[in-house]
Amino acid sequence: MARLLVVPLNNLFASIPDAVAGELSTSLVTRSGVRFERIVSQGQASPEGFWYDQAEREFVLLVQGRAELEFADARVVTLGPGDWLEIGAHVRHRVRSTAPDGPTIWLVAFYD
Amino acid sequence: MARLLVVPLNNLFASIPDAVAGELSTSLVTRSGVRFERIVSQGQASPEGFWYDQAEREFVLLVQGRAELEFADARVVTLGPGDWLEIGAHVRHRVRSTAPDGPTIWLVAFYD
Repeated sequence: MARLLVVPLNNLFASIPDAVAGELSTSLVTRSGVRFERIVSQGQASPEGFWYDQAEREFVLLVQGRAELEFADARVVTLGPGDWLEIGAHVRHRVRSTAPDGPTIWLVAFYD
Repeated sequence: MARLLVVPLNNLFASIPDAVAGELSTSLVTRSGVRFERIVSQGQASPEGFWYDQAEREFVLLVQGRAELEFADARVVTLGPGDWLEIGAHVRHRVRSTAPDGPTIWLVAFYD
C-alpha cells in the first residue's frame, strides 16, 4: 500500500458555508508536535468573561477579514489580513469581535 | 524582567522589497518542535535538477501570488492564494516556477 507522502492540495477558502451559524473549526494537519486548523468566524466573539487559557502555544495568522483579540492584561489587538502573532501558553485571551459582514478566516497552529 | 508572553503583531505583507533580487526567507517563530518562516519569491525557481530532500515535514500555505511545485514522481502542483499542502519528510520536491510579475508570499512551517 502506498504511503501517503503528501497531504493533497486544499484551499483555505474552500467549503465555507454561505452563512456561518457558528464558528467553524476544521483540522488541517495533526502531527505529534503540532496541529494546524482553519477557523472561520462571522461576527462571533468569545462569551463575555470567557478566557482561553491554553496549555500550548498558538500561532495565529488572520488570512481574511478582521478581528479583535483581547488579553487579560487589557490589551486589545486588531488584526487584518496578513497579521500574525504567537500567543504564549496560558496567556489568557478572548476573541473580542470578528467582522459581521463576511467570513473571517484564520490559520492557527498549536504546539508546545 | 517581564517574560515575553506574546510575539508582537506582525504582518506577512510588511517589509517586502520593491524588487525581489533573490528569494527572501524570514524566520517568524522558532520553537523546539516547529519553526515558522515567511518566504517571498518573485520569478525564482529551484535550479534545474535540484531537489529539496528535507528531514522534516513542511506545511506550506501560499498566501499571495502563484507557484508550481514539482515532485520527483513527476507530479506538478499549481498553487494560488489559500492553497496549502503538507510535504512529507524526504519527499523530494522543487519550486518549478513562481509568478514573475509580483511577490509570491508563502507561510511555511517545519516540524517532525
